[in-house]
Amino acid sequence: MSYYSSHPTALLRMSPALIKSSCEGPSTLSNARVSHLSSRHVQYVHSKALSSDAVPSGKSAHYEGGRGRNMIDEITERRAKAGKLVAGIAAVSDSDMFKGPQTGKPKAKRWDNHLSQESRERKPCTLKQAAKFLKKPGLISLGGGLPSSQLFPIAELAMKVPKSPNFSEQATIESGQHISIGKYDVRDHDSEYDLSIALNYGQSTGSAQMMRFITEHTELVCRPPYADWRVCQTIGSTGALEQAIRMFCDKDRQDSILTEEFSFSTALETFAPLGINMFGVKIDEQGLIPEAMDELLSNWDVAARGGAGKPHVLYTVPSGQNPTGATQGTERRKAIYQVAQKHDIYIIEDEPYYFLQMQPYTGADQPSAPVPTSVDEFVSSLIPSLVSIDIDGRVMRMDSFSKVLIPGSRMGWVVASEQIIERYQRHAEVASQGPSGLSQVVLWKLLDDTWGHEGYFQWLINLREEYTHKRDKMLAACEEHLPQSLVSWTPPVAGMFMWLTVDHTQHPSGDATDLIKIEEDIFNSCIENGVLVARGSWFLTEKDKALQGLYFRVTFASASGEQMSEAIGRFGEAVKKSFGVN
Amino acid sequence: MSYYSSHPTALLRMSPALIKSSCEGPSTLSNARVSHLSSRHVQYVHSKALSSDAVPSGKSAHYEGGRGRNMIDEITERRAKAGKLVAGIAAVSDSDMFKGPQTGKPKAKRWDNHLSQESRERKPCTLKQAAKFLKKPGLISLGGGLPSSQLFPIAELAMKVPKSPNFSEQATIESGQHISIGKYDVRDHDSEYDLSIALNYGQSTGSAQMMRFITEHTELVCRPPYADWRVCQTIGSTGALEQAIRMFCDKDRQDSILTEEFSFSTALETFAPLGINMFGVKIDEQGLIPEAMDELLSNWDVAARGGAGKPHVLYTVPSGQNPTGATQGTERRKAIYQVAQKHDIYIIEDEPYYFLQMQPYTGADQPSAPVPTSVDEFVSSLIPSLVSIDIDGRVMRMDSFSKVLIPGSRMGWVVASEQIIERYQRHAEVASQGPSGLSQVVLWKLLDDTWGHEGYFQWLINLREEYTHKRDKMLAACEEHLPQSLVSWTPPVAGMFMWLTVDHTQHPSGDATDLIKIEEDIFNSCIENGVLVARGSWFLTEKDKALQGLYFRVTFASASGEQMSEAIGRFGEAVKKSFGVN
Repeated sequence: MSYYSSHPTALLRMSPALIKSSCEGPSTLSNARVSHLSSRHVQYVHSKALSSDAVPSGKSAHYEGGRGRNMIDEITERRAKAGKLVAGIAAVSDSDMFKGPQTGKPKAKRWDNHLSQESRERKPCTLKQAAKFLKKPGLISLGGGLPSSQLFPIAELAMKVPKSPNFSEQATIESGQHISIGKYDVRDHDSEYDLSIALNYGQSTGSAQMMRFITEHTELVCRPPYADWRVCQTIGSTGALEQAIRMFCDKDRQDSILTEEFSFSTALETFAPLGINMFGVKIDEQGLIPEAMDELLSNWDVAARGGAGKPHVLYTVPSGQNPTGATQGTERRKAIYQVAQKHDIYIIEDEPYYFLQMQPYTGADQPSAPVPTSVDEFVSSLIPSLVSIDIDGRVMRMDSFSKVLIPGSRMGWVVASEQIIERYQRHAEVASQGPSGLSQVVLWKLLDDTWGHEGYFQWLINLREEYTHKRDKMLAACEEHLPQSLVSWTPPVAGMFMWLTVDHTQHPSGDATDLIKIEEDIFNSCIENGVLVARGSWFLTEKDKALQGLYFRVTFASASGEQMSEAIGRFGEAVKKSFGVN
Repeated sequence: MSYYSSHPTALLRMSPALIKSSCEGPSTLSNARVSHLSSRHVQYVHSKALSSDAVPSGKSAHYEGGRGRNMIDEITERRAKAGKLVAGIAAVSDSDMFKGPQTGKPKAKRWDNHLSQESRERKPCTLKQAAKFLKKPGLISLGGGLPSSQLFPIAELAMKVPKSPNFSEQATIESGQHISIGKYDVRDHDSEYDLSIALNYGQSTGSAQMMRFITEHTELVCRPPYADWRVCQTIGSTGALEQAIRMFCDKDRQDSILTEEFSFSTALETFAPLGINMFGVKIDEQGLIPEAMDELLSNWDVAARGGAGKPHVLYTVPSGQNPTGATQGTERRKAIYQVAQKHDIYIIEDEPYYFLQMQPYTGADQPSAPVPTSVDEFVSSLIPSLVSIDIDGRVMRMDSFSKVLIPGSRMGWVVASEQIIERYQRHAEVASQGPSGLSQVVLWKLLDDTWGHEGYFQWLINLREEYTHKRDKMLAACEEHLPQSLVSWTPPVAGMFMWLTVDHTQHPSGDATDLIKIEEDIFNSCIENGVLVARGSWFLTEKDKALQGLYFRVTFASASGEQMSEAIGRFGEAVKKSFGVN
């Protein structure tokens, strides 16, 4: 695996990208405030002139950058050298403006044969292309229909947020910090982002300001091992998945998609109406089994599959899989990737729970294991994402702020090769037009301008602690209340979910052919007893196949410890009743 | 046209909808704050018990409600009688909870034959359906993966906004009002919406709180003449259009769509990759010509059209059409609607510029005409939307806050019949999941909780004044700088755009067959002279047809009066140069 590396010539080599004509905004500038708004072209403004003397080139130490603090320092230094980011209304940006050097990495492969007809036929917006003329000095634009910032009704937006590392709700109420965003902070207060920009139209990629943060965050955590990776902001992972499926799957080709045999029901409901065939791969306690995937693909028979083409896309949730809570270990991920290479599979990895990786379970009567105390230790503790071992550029990684920060922001991002991100962006500009500017400026103010990368990692460490406690309480409740001769589970190492397996072979009816009926009875008993759990059959990938076991999904995300204990007790009673035991 | 009518039994008849089990939320409640969060079921809580005695039924005056103030009073009264809206995290809502009575109105027709296969095959989300069990008292949910509100990092959000009617930027800076939204305002301050709700997951329809405001706004302005109309929030009109097209158009049926012969290029770029055929209808100074539409449809020959099916959808921008700036008058809209009825056409009306209807143009040296002084006068002055004459329920109206408030909110809404909104919602819940909660709570605080309907109308009146001034300056610049023997235009009565027609027959080349070359030369001259305008050919609906005239689109939305004068002068020089005149 080739990791990110950096050397002092970084800035020189970044310069062309930074100052290139990046002005294909959707329409015109507001001419009312030319000095401010003519910054549609992303650029850096430096207090001191950058000369090549200031940045020695060549023969520099070429070192493997570590994840964590070292790289945060590098990023801080890179930003300081680059100067103030100037990116005005609807400024065009891409990750290349913000990445460190990708020396020695190969370029991603091309995926033309994987793209749907719809995606291949997308063309850039005419009006956005016209905006390239805006770079001409003195030009007055009567070209596009952007409202004037003067007519936006919010002069200032302020918020009270946690002061790192005191993240608790109570600490924030008592001693949180007040931060605010003005309409013309860029002009008046030397800020890099303000309401005059965020409240206007933006780009489908999202703002340059958040693009920088997310690109750097991706470097810090994922460091894809190919050169031309990029990110694009999305309407959460749900929005990203819908666009991704339309990009890669084509009904007219009889396309098929692989996923875990039990998979996120909303994802399945996204695929189904598009006429995409779905097939489930066997799973174990680490999720998807690569050997099963290989076997399924090696023996694919189109006729026997009712005309369904051999799958060319894998949709997987590697960490804290929904619904099973399973997490693929490092070796498991590598093995899955190899099978994907063997069969020319493009991988969509959905990682909303990546930062809900938890400490190991210590047992019911033991205190929870302490969380990492440093950013280095924290980042090193994370299982590599599939995109981190992706030498071909065959992975689209979907991430989101929903599970770790603010679901209502409807903000996520995808990481993939330049080719794929460009196609994604073409779709987004005639659909969502990118995430809400209000969401973006609020998250930027918090994450970039207030906490910084280090503070955000501290927040994530705090979250790891919270979820470790929650999971431990759930496990304790299960150990206390469930009949372990009937119900089994694997302590989850990531996510929000636990998968309870009920041994149907012990059911007095002896009728394993009608598991769906037993599942329904237990579910109804649960409701009667006052607990809602999710039925395994809801997540079956292949709906036409009979249920092979009794499973129930429970979450430890929201209920209190006492509630979980009570609720698991009620579930246990329902199981015992169905099985006729005490 | 059957207008909205109301009588005092309204509340009684609303009650079943208000208290019905409306709890199909996406997943679980956070049990951490049961008293607060168990409000997933939308309901009203009243300080005084509502008895049937308090609201006399039957034999009441059955009157035609007027648009404007009278109806605002009705809505105020309706809200007061209904009591506090209680709608917690991801509460399900629909317009029927907030509409006045629709007495005497017919139900909308069904549009099954217009829906695409994709849309017909959509099923409700399994997990959302499971949430219906949440209404059981005392139930503890381990069912869905909603993060706990305690883990959201914003304790309070505050903003400085205009105090109606002093809307200017300067007045806001000097004497704007400060308003704020806390995390637990519903629990602690008797508010109806707060951050604990807005920052969590929501419904694809958007929040109940904004649903109420938008439903009432639709009553105040549009009052569809059929009973079962509803609204659904959208990711702006761009997001709405993409979903609408996938709902109504099906490549496998060889579907075709009609629109103006020059149409919004981004809309055309939305349709094209989906394999939908597009055809342009002749236009005049009031936009789409109904007779031309009738003729086109009456003589449709599938074979002669290369297999393209007879169009069954019309996409039109009735007010301030993009790019031509044309506005359909009331009679024109009725005539278009009749043609749609005759040919079984479903209409998608895109009305982002509806509230940019302006005062009549008074002439270059005259002061602009004064804007309406009252809400009544303002609302009465608006040309009826197509949905306001839609007795069949054959119109989907798309509206948005982008042009009139905050483009970066990515918030809009659609109005259509219950059947269509339900299908739209099924798509949104596996795509965007509805607009950003941050956008929603900010707009709710401003529009509903601070300004109210009356204040928002005052804002829109102020905007009408601003745009009237802007347009008048553009017209004055044209009159001053353009050679009127060569360039002609119609003063726009709505929108942001003006369409300049250059008389190509006078061109010295005499080569009317190569208009695209002349258009390009003029455009390039414009860039050289320092002005960006949009070329007519960019908006051609049928790209394979030769350009029949020379047109340029200019906007008066963003440039100042001085800049417009300078810019139009530069454009005039470019035209004169091409035509060899001084």
